[in-house]
Amino acid sequence: MITVYDQEYFQGRRMEFTASCQNIMECGMENIRSLKVECGAWVGYEHSSFCGQQFVLEKGDYPRFEAYSGSNSYRIERMISFRPICYFFFLSFAQNHKDSRMIIFEMENMMGRQFEMCDDYPSLQAMGWFNNEVGSMQIQSGAFVCYQYPGYRGHQYIMECDCRGGEYKCYREFGSHAQTPQIQSIRRIQH
Amino acid sequence: MITVYDQEYFQGRRMEFTASCQNIMECGMENIRSLKVECGAWVGYEHSSFCGQQFVLEKGDYPRFEAYSGSNSYRIERMISFRPICYFFFLSFAQNHKDSRMIIFEMENMMGRQFEMCDDYPSLQAMGWFNNEVGSMQIQSGAFVCYQYPGYRGHQYIMECDCRGGEYKCYREFGSHAQTPQIQSIRRIQH
Repeated sequence: MITVYDQEYFQGRRMEFTASCQNIMECGMENIRSLKVECGAWVGYEHSSFCGQQFVLEKGDYPRFEAYSGSNSYRIERMISFRPICYFFFLSFAQNHKDSRMIIFEMENMMGRQFEMCDDYPSLQAMGWFNNEVGSMQIQSGAFVCYQYPGYRGHQYIMECDCRGGEYKCYREFGSHAQTPQIQSIRRIQH
Repeated sequence: MITVYDQEYFQGRRMEFTASCQNIMECGMENIRSLKVECGAWVGYEHSSFCGQQFVLEKGDYPRFEAYSGSNSYRIERMISFRPICYFFFLSFAQNHKDSRMIIFEMENMMGRQFEMCDDYPSLQAMGWFNNEVGSMQIQSGAFVCYQYPGYRGHQYIMECDCRGGEYKCYREFGSHAQTPQIQSIRRIQH
């Protein structure tokens, strides 16, 4: 469940959601200025219908927009749509994000050098990846969030085994806002 | 080693450092607009002499200021000083960030409920921590970065076993810019 408010610090009008919302304005709310994730993991989007910049929302309190917006390199002012990451709703309590597995590839279409990941990597280069880009990826299990810069900064791309058959064949499939294949940190999304 | 540039995208004047720098302006550089971390893990600071807002810098490319600044909730314009996280220079190649261990406490002075951490936690509440604050902490081994909001967002506080004997007894010891004990995600710093 996710609870959204139209004012900062959990003030003002309040709405609860247990499923995705394609356009918060159609629910009569102008903007979301704070929110609480009570359970599950969610993805927020800049535009309606799950378009534009995306950002992961895990359990916790987000008292101001700056707490949940994705990146400070590209200014976004709103969160208009959001959806749960469904994978986590099918997990038993015994399982968790530790079961996430993916492969990153040097080139598009799962070609070139590859590396299998099942942990969190705040710096791909520190783990031995040879440059600051990822050409394509295959999510075998679970869900990950990939970031443009080291240390989980910059644009976010949420990758799920349940979307596109888990295959992201080139950077244009990473997200509608992706302009380069630059990815320098990757982590599992927490259940 | 860290290489800093006075223009974005690794352009302009260039300087290399293998040890800490207390004031980049005293080295004749007005500002740092891009940087590359070649080895080790470093901490950048907003002001000279390692004061003001702090942000972790792991191996990788940081082409613009927005790529390495700590938080978008509080606008900082500069990185004036930086230092290596020394713990990592004493590790053998066989060891790595997986050896990091810390305990978080509900109240100041290591009192109240506690939890031992040796992994990465993008949401403390998802792992079972009862609220959005941490009263005090004890770093037993390695180094961690604590964040104000879930998903590694907001103000950063770098915590090391080699500083203050690893003891951070109240939120005012978390960093010179800490104004509340609000901490919602914690991760190990990567070697």
